[in-house]
Amino acid sequence: MIRKTRLFTPGPTPLLPAAQFAMAAADIHHRTPEFRAMFQKVLAQLKVFVGTKNDVLLLSSSGTGAMEASVSNLTSPGDRVLVLSAGKFGERWVGLAKAFGCEVDVVSAPYGQTFDLEAVRAALKPEHRVVFLQATETSTAVRHDVEGIAKLVRETEALLVVDGITGLGTTHFDVDGWGIDVLIGGSQKAVMIPPGLSYLSVSDKAWAAMETSKNPRYYFDLRKERKNAAKGESAYTPAVALIAGLGAALDYIAGQAGGDLEKGRIALVDNAQVNAAATRAGLVALGFTLFAPTAPAAAATAVAVPEGMNSGDVVKALKTRFALVTANGQGEMQGKIFRVAHLGFFDYLDTVALLGAMEHIAKDTLGLPVEYGQAVAAAQRVYADAVNSGQ
Amino acid sequence: MIRKTRLFTPGPTPLLPAAQFAMAAADIHHRTPEFRAMFQKVLAQLKVFVGTKNDVLLLSSSGTGAMEASVSNLTSPGDRVLVLSAGKFGERWVGLAKAFGCEVDVVSAPYGQTFDLEAVRAALKPEHRVVFLQATETSTAVRHDVEGIAKLVRETEALLVVDGITGLGTTHFDVDGWGIDVLIGGSQKAVMIPPGLSYLSVSDKAWAAMETSKNPRYYFDLRKERKNAAKGESAYTPAVALIAGLGAALDYIAGQAGGDLEKGRIALVDNAQVNAAATRAGLVALGFTLFAPTAPAAAATAVAVPEGMNSGDVVKALKTRFALVTANGQGEMQGKIFRVAHLGFFDYLDTVALLGAMEHIAKDTLGLPVEYGQAVAAAQRVYADAVNSGQ
Repeated sequence: MIRKTRLFTPGPTPLLPAAQFAMAAADIHHRTPEFRAMFQKVLAQLKVFVGTKNDVLLLSSSGTGAMEASVSNLTSPGDRVLVLSAGKFGERWVGLAKAFGCEVDVVSAPYGQTFDLEAVRAALKPEHRVVFLQATETSTAVRHDVEGIAKLVRETEALLVVDGITGLGTTHFDVDGWGIDVLIGGSQKAVMIPPGLSYLSVSDKAWAAMETSKNPRYYFDLRKERKNAAKGESAYTPAVALIAGLGAALDYIAGQAGGDLEKGRIALVDNAQVNAAATRAGLVALGFTLFAPTAPAAAATAVAVPEGMNSGDVVKALKTRFALVTANGQGEMQGKIFRVAHLGFFDYLDTVALLGAMEHIAKDTLGLPVEYGQAVAAAQRVYADAVNSGQ
Repeated sequence: MIRKTRLFTPGPTPLLPAAQFAMAAADIHHRTPEFRAMFQKVLAQLKVFVGTKNDVLLLSSSGTGAMEASVSNLTSPGDRVLVLSAGKFGERWVGLAKAFGCEVDVVSAPYGQTFDLEAVRAALKPEHRVVFLQATETSTAVRHDVEGIAKLVRETEALLVVDGITGLGTTHFDVDGWGIDVLIGGSQKAVMIPPGLSYLSVSDKAWAAMETSKNPRYYFDLRKERKNAAKGESAYTPAVALIAGLGAALDYIAGQAGGDLEKGRIALVDNAQVNAAATRAGLVALGFTLFAPTAPAAAATAVAVPEGMNSGDVVKALKTRFALVTANGQGEMQGKIFRVAHLGFFDYLDTVALLGAMEHIAKDTLGLPVEYGQAVAAAQRVYADAVNSGQ
């Protein structure tokens, strides 16, 4: 039987065909007027997609490269910083800040949960030069309250750096209104292209802070990137095909709203939120437990398998039987949870297909008491309600 | 909300990505060793895919071109032929045979039904030079009993020409054992590439008959194609990219069975049959009536909407709400039936997605009493039974 490969991982996400075609056609040199025109167009589109008046830069690196750039450009060895950590990517901020010699204070939340704002307020010290956090913690599929946290950080002198790698395109940000100094995105997420690019918005306050920071940086020197971007170029050889693909994807997102990229971005977030809500309803109907019940992300859904069962069996069976690729839990969550994504190029019928497959796996692999159609039906009710309410 | 375009039409069918990439890469001239090697490989693959020791030729035309070739190469003006007609494509045989001056006898079956073998036996006359029929009548989604009809034709001197355009890859043929003199296929069907190519197997008896037929032909002169094919070339400029895509698709079909194209062809037929059976169960569960209950094709399923409703509304709503493209009935069946396809690059989760969408349409557009999940559940039971029985 034919089994079409279906990626349901929270990065890489399914590729947009129009972006694939643009990548295949990207046979141009990067020091030419053709490239400069394309690069400037994509940078302008990214400003709208991020939703900011700040500069937005594009780096040929994974999202971690932009995270490193935020640390190396904004801190000096010995600086005290605050990391809000509730999962593997929160821990990455800690690792990065320590690698660049920072004194790191941490506000933690257990896996599957988000931060207590009072704990954040209590932890914030006048000495903190930067506060780092995720908008959504991909490893646990939790959404953090960036707006609430930004409000607390704004009462201090600290810079606010937000990893929005899976948050952008799945949750709304008011970058300038909330005072997010750096907001980071990645290409293999909501923007529907393969890994290899990261992008980040940088506020005036962040640009000013860079002048005094003493950490070494070269490839990720944001001031150099900014200078080159003004001329329509990147500092070093850029991933040209990915940039062409990104432009095509942003065109597609705008095209979903009659050419208006801002509205298209909002529609993309709504799309992820409806699919996430439908998926949650379907998986709960099958007997799984939401891993992040209080603050579920729209980027991905993490569910725990019933006690005594192994989430790896679900991931493996979905792959073997249906060529459907999901993600196991990471680190200590491995075997306990599995994750399915909604960010980027997913539609409602993908959700229906996923849940149809999950019903077979829940029944045959886990031996749960499944009545065929029950997960799909739960998702259908959520979808119908969303449609009726005008989404 | 994102809506991915999903073709569920019985041609064109969804494109295989590997074939798309091969088409994009097909930047070669057609009078070169590179092309000749590719062409000969594809012709050899087609013999296995058709399942015959006969020659198989490839024409740069739609399937109707190969139908015309069968008429123009095998008949002379004034020849008496028998057409078995039960739909739009049966009628096309009548039109073609008349266009080339044949005296046409017809055995008809009403739309949605297949032929009474006794009626075929009674109609067959010693003067009939050729018998023309469809393996599956795409306009009504009916499968005809090619084996039974071939048995009757073998008792006469007539040639047997079968339009297998949607039959190949959805039903089993024993071309040589049954004595099918010409069996015709098209590219935009089970072989997962765009329209533009047809192919046909030609028996020794058919080659002999061509020597005496007096109808004019040039582009579709099969003897010329055969002579060129022996050298690895086509008589006229071939659709090079489509041939490259066809080779990639046949590689994929073989790859589904460990590289064995014959087994891959059987698996492809099984795939269509399971998806067709699951779809029939799902649509019947929703209250639709099978249009061809006695001889349903695996290529496509045709269902009638309840009395007083318009099938065009279903087709339109599926397109508008879910970007899901299905086919209305043709001719006098327009508005009464709609058709969804299973031939080629479809998998079970496509069927689940289709039925999930159909539940919303049946409820919202037609006002049928739908319980969410019921069509999906009916399909899931069929699929689970097929898996358990080893398909």
